[in-house]
Amino acid sequence: MKLLRYGAPGAERPGILDKNGSIRDISSIVPDLAGQYLTPEWLQKIASADATSLPIVEGEPRLGSCVAQPGKFLCIGLNYSDHAAESGMAVPAEPVLFMKAGSSICGPNDNVVIPRGSLKTDWEVELGVVIGAKAKYVSEADALNYVAGYCVINDVSERAFQLEGTGQWVKGKSADTFGPTGPWLVTRDEVPDPQALSMWLEVDGHRYQNGTTSTMVFGVAHLVSYLSRFMSLQPGDIISTGTPPGVGLGQKPPVYLRAGNVIRLGVQGLGEQQQTVVADE
Amino acid sequence: MKLLRYGAPGAERPGILDKNGSIRDISSIVPDLAGQYLTPEWLQKIASADATSLPIVEGEPRLGSCVAQPGKFLCIGLNYSDHAAESGMAVPAEPVLFMKAGSSICGPNDNVVIPRGSLKTDWEVELGVVIGAKAKYVSEADALNYVAGYCVINDVSERAFQLEGTGQWVKGKSADTFGPTGPWLVTRDEVPDPQALSMWLEVDGHRYQNGTTSTMVFGVAHLVSYLSRFMSLQPGDIISTGTPPGVGLGQKPPVYLRAGNVIRLGVQGLGEQQQTVVADE
Repeated sequence: MKLLRYGAPGAERPGILDKNGSIRDISSIVPDLAGQYLTPEWLQKIASADATSLPIVEGEPRLGSCVAQPGKFLCIGLNYSDHAAESGMAVPAEPVLFMKAGSSICGPNDNVVIPRGSLKTDWEVELGVVIGAKAKYVSEADALNYVAGYCVINDVSERAFQLEGTGQWVKGKSADTFGPTGPWLVTRDEVPDPQALSMWLEVDGHRYQNGTTSTMVFGVAHLVSYLSRFMSLQPGDIISTGTPPGVGLGQKPPVYLRAGNVIRLGVQGLGEQQQTVVADE
Repeated sequence: MKLLRYGAPGAERPGILDKNGSIRDISSIVPDLAGQYLTPEWLQKIASADATSLPIVEGEPRLGSCVAQPGKFLCIGLNYSDHAAESGMAVPAEPVLFMKAGSSICGPNDNVVIPRGSLKTDWEVELGVVIGAKAKYVSEADALNYVAGYCVINDVSERAFQLEGTGQWVKGKSADTFGPTGPWLVTRDEVPDPQALSMWLEVDGHRYQNGTTSTMVFGVAHLVSYLSRFMSLQPGDIISTGTPPGVGLGQKPPVYLRAGNVIRLGVQGLGEQQQTVVADE
């Protein structure tokens, strides 16, 4: 299933993409695509519905994040060996974990707002993993059973805030609109191998990122298992699994986002995003 | 007001401590002490109620975190100059920001569970700041107007996970039960000067931490203003503002928590916490 949320910011309703590409409202089945409704039982309830009987949503509504405000927005850094090289950092011995503020999440096609004082706002196409069951000390062999599905994420990053100030990366990862998520939450059954997905990102039509999840240093199953040793993962938590080469910081000279730029990005089978970059008012 | 949440984990109800030290249920006024109900309007609604008409809660119920699951659990590192020195780190030029997982939050007197594989679980008494209104690019002069109130936080930390592995501190800060919060959310009007509060922590009756918020490097107003440049703060977000000297890591030789230890801690005017340390099953 391709699950989504449509409507005005803060007033999104749950929907599903039918096989003709139409959005059908599923609010009669599930109140929202929040963590508590992403468990296997709820996903089964949605899957069991007769899609043709659900109301079609007319027009082209705005899409919200395909997951309502998650408990945790966890991110893995330097998880593609080529990207680590372009960042001038070593491939890590274990997954590098950081967090983005949940308030950075927005719809897949919402504007990306450059924060005041930012000169180095950058892009990162990533495979997002959405948790569907509480996971604590789970084995790698069992880990994918705790995944509800996958989505596209743009892990927008302000490099000066992230790397040149004091302390931890979260400062450059958490501005409002720095987490476009969606268009769809594609359920796990439709993604037989999360380590075989191509992914790409363009700015104003120039392709900067071209990668595949097959070159991840730590794959999805390893990440879910590994993280579950340090904290419990809950339904609705999002793990953004790192970006392949081609970020702005890695260009020679570096290239950063400016107001008016248009970003397009996608992951194979998970849909595409398009954002216009604007300055903060 | 001293606001609190009482009852079994996941089923807490909102309450208020009356002037005789009794808990009175306020669920007829407000559904829960979650972000949306911590705005000035809702706090005014609670303050306007006739406390003597509210039902007294009998017995000594468990207390939950005084704030329901926050959107963000932001923490400031090395924010007391003496603590930076004992950690062998320089006093930072700007606030050091990191995040704890929201799922680490628990009641003020719940057990602290040492994660599997942990040998270096440590304590940190901290002043917690709870946001009451959306804050974005706010000035330091105006910043305290965005604060709903204050509480005690034990920023429990696994030092090996935090400092000896790859990457960012979040890994050692986020285990379940690593964020005892409460007993009360003390509203801002009852804390005229957040930079004049004594604070302390004992393990098995030995006093390890003895400090005062007057020695913070960056005070509460500065922190709220500073953070609001990097992300918007929402009602219910928690900022834990750093710990004074005396953590286990700073002892010579270092001292870490073991199953059976009892931790007691408090901040002047904000109440006390007591946790028993247990091993993960």
